[in-house]
Amino acid sequence: MTKLVVIGGVAAGMSAASKARRTNQGMEIEVYTDEEYISYAGCGLPYFVAGMVQEERKLIARTKEQFVRQGIKVFTNHKVLSILPTEMQIIVVDSEGAEKKVNYDKLVIATGARAFVPPLPGKELDNVFTVKSIPSARRIKEQMQSEQVKNIVIVGGGYIGLEMAEAFAAWKKQITIVELAPQLLGNIDEDMAALVEEYLVKEGVQIRKGEKVLALEGQDQVRKVVTDKGEIPADLVILAIGIQPNSELAAEAGIQLGVKKAIKVNKYMETNIPNIYAAGDCATAYHLLYQDDAYIPLGTTANKQGKVAGENAAGGKAEFAGIVGTAIIKVLDLEIGRTGLSKREAQQLGREVQEIKVEAYTKAHFYPGSQAATIKLLIEKASQKIVGAQIVGGAGAGKRIDVLAVAVQLGLTPFALSELDLSYAPPFSPVWDPVLTVANVAVGELEKKA
Amino acid sequence: MTKLVVIGGVAAGMSAASKARRTNQGMEIEVYTDEEYISYAGCGLPYFVAGMVQEERKLIARTKEQFVRQGIKVFTNHKVLSILPTEMQIIVVDSEGAEKKVNYDKLVIATGARAFVPPLPGKELDNVFTVKSIPSARRIKEQMQSEQVKNIVIVGGGYIGLEMAEAFAAWKKQITIVELAPQLLGNIDEDMAALVEEYLVKEGVQIRKGEKVLALEGQDQVRKVVTDKGEIPADLVILAIGIQPNSELAAEAGIQLGVKKAIKVNKYMETNIPNIYAAGDCATAYHLLYQDDAYIPLGTTANKQGKVAGENAAGGKAEFAGIVGTAIIKVLDLEIGRTGLSKREAQQLGREVQEIKVEAYTKAHFYPGSQAATIKLLIEKASQKIVGAQIVGGAGAGKRIDVLAVAVQLGLTPFALSELDLSYAPPFSPVWDPVLTVANVAVGELEKKA
Repeated sequence: MTKLVVIGGVAAGMSAASKARRTNQGMEIEVYTDEEYISYAGCGLPYFVAGMVQEERKLIARTKEQFVRQGIKVFTNHKVLSILPTEMQIIVVDSEGAEKKVNYDKLVIATGARAFVPPLPGKELDNVFTVKSIPSARRIKEQMQSEQVKNIVIVGGGYIGLEMAEAFAAWKKQITIVELAPQLLGNIDEDMAALVEEYLVKEGVQIRKGEKVLALEGQDQVRKVVTDKGEIPADLVILAIGIQPNSELAAEAGIQLGVKKAIKVNKYMETNIPNIYAAGDCATAYHLLYQDDAYIPLGTTANKQGKVAGENAAGGKAEFAGIVGTAIIKVLDLEIGRTGLSKREAQQLGREVQEIKVEAYTKAHFYPGSQAATIKLLIEKASQKIVGAQIVGGAGAGKRIDVLAVAVQLGLTPFALSELDLSYAPPFSPVWDPVLTVANVAVGELEKKA
Repeated sequence: MTKLVVIGGVAAGMSAASKARRTNQGMEIEVYTDEEYISYAGCGLPYFVAGMVQEERKLIARTKEQFVRQGIKVFTNHKVLSILPTEMQIIVVDSEGAEKKVNYDKLVIATGARAFVPPLPGKELDNVFTVKSIPSARRIKEQMQSEQVKNIVIVGGGYIGLEMAEAFAAWKKQITIVELAPQLLGNIDEDMAALVEEYLVKEGVQIRKGEKVLALEGQDQVRKVVTDKGEIPADLVILAIGIQPNSELAAEAGIQLGVKKAIKVNKYMETNIPNIYAAGDCATAYHLLYQDDAYIPLGTTANKQGKVAGENAAGGKAEFAGIVGTAIIKVLDLEIGRTGLSKREAQQLGREVQEIKVEAYTKAHFYPGSQAATIKLLIEKASQKIVGAQIVGGAGAGKRIDVLAVAVQLGLTPFALSELDLSYAPPFSPVWDPVLTVANVAVGELEKKA
């Protein structure tokens, strides 16, 4: 019987195992993970800390028992020490320290990613956390109940930093976000990020941009954050600087790494070594606009890639279509969506773009709860295609990025976008949906130039 | 100076006038309407009756004065008696009864539609209403304050009937919907309509399907509705049976009518008579899936067609891309979206379709407020393209129809749909958006058959 071994028990790993099972009933499937939990929603951790999700088990999408019933053996608290491609084996150590060799016919590496932690003096102090696992989230949440924990400093103003800001706001903490770059959310344009900053400041979050954290200080427990511009009192610090792939195990086995040291995969999720696949946050993803590999670890991509890896490992022939960099985030009541290239990305790729930005509303002007939304298209001058889009606005704004993601993925022009028969009723949209409004303005601008 | 005359002062008419002005600064533009109000949101009337929109003026998108500042003359309470194409004139009568002839070089007919009222005995009784104008909505709302008005019967279970049911529910009235057809919402499939019915019944609305209203009875004021199956007490009756185009004026002038007696237009919004355009609820719209004209009067289409008519009347050359029948409605907390062909429409067109239906959720499983949504694809067997889609579910379900509308309009297969890089974060979506989930299931089904 052919045997599939999966390393990693979260999004990509469990998607691979499940899809392999559905594809091939006769295959032996084993999953090894050094974590205690499998199939948990890493993206849900901020909401667990916020107290919106009360029980840890609610973050678990599917239990070990559910996988076992599918005929998938799951070994939690089992660390994989090495991959031996020639022998087609992995070496595993269990929680008691016992080592064993496990044979595989097909191997899927889905080791995920971890928070990047710079060599910062004081990073080992108490109450300094990254947000990556259920246990770390649990410890952060425990600290929330303490009245001694008043000042929280979040190092990094990306997705995780902002989502954690929302979580801490729920506990009425004093929040400071320190960001090295001159703007929050580096993957949207500066003017759009400024809207997010303006909102957060209004909500009482302190934002310090262009500021470098030099050290964390305190006795046992962190008490302050020292930066190149001053000191910030801190009873708890979140390091949300970035994410890096867990690719060392693969690299040691001679598997080729690609961009940002993620495991390089092709569209079949194959690595450079036969019978070894990789998927999810440890792997690269083909970016349809870069026309090259990218490293943009996200839950959706992990699930999709895992499914492709699982199907192929089980004898199928699936392809991962690639990404266009679509992402969405909510911070308090603000919604932020983005897709395709940002202005900066376009510049880096040498693709000249024109920006069209409009202010619109999420519902009919007379309908209660209609929220302002700023929406931007980036149109490539050469092709006149929409190569990027961003939205910042109130409730109902964010998910509108999906139609724009389709426009980017399919290479629509603003004219084609303006011709779409999108839905309208007062509780959902103005009669011209914001997406059509920005398309109309873009068409007008392009016609003026023509 | 060339002169554009527009007949009708709501969505299509005012869009035409505005676009003509933007296209051609030197044109003389006059708008004639027999109504008191212009540029009002007919779609907003149920929310005005509900009391969600307090002031009538909030329903007005733009005032007469705003148009005047654009150099557009607006003549309210001016009824157009006839169009004289040979003379290129219209005959108008003002509120004092004075008649005059008005010359035009270009004419846009945007006379809209009216509620269809069958020759029902008792239809002239007090408290029998249609929902079409601000004055009629005002009278309905006045009746809401009366405690004597307890039982309301809505004849017709289409969009307007259901939206009015929501309005009356806000006033805690006893509501009965009587529908002649065997299901509510004739333009979605029976199984999806059954979900809507189930919800409304749970919310306390009485639904009587397959029941024909024979007469309205009462002295002065309506007191009961007599059907082929019994009698229903009624202190107020809404006739929401259907919509018919105001096309008589055009027909009398020799302008050709098309489907459902709407004014037949081509993609330039031209009628069969030179220099005369039509747009909006009085006109046909090209349906990209019918590959033929349809009559589906909606605000979005009216605005788009008005814009095209205005641009062309002002010397431009715009085209209306056509519709795919996208629509959305909210009734209480239920959202209903549809696009493309329903099963019935597909059958009528002789196009064999396969149905794929899934139950999904609007947010991550652990995120508070995640709502169930049923989502259906109709896939044409011959082409394997998605030719229709429907969604019924809680908050956040409805607007997902937009991505599916794009899929239908661009002719995507379920496979192409499944490859889209849509946005995910727990407050917005499960990691597999419902749209991707139904696409994945469809791909699986198609592969099984292949």
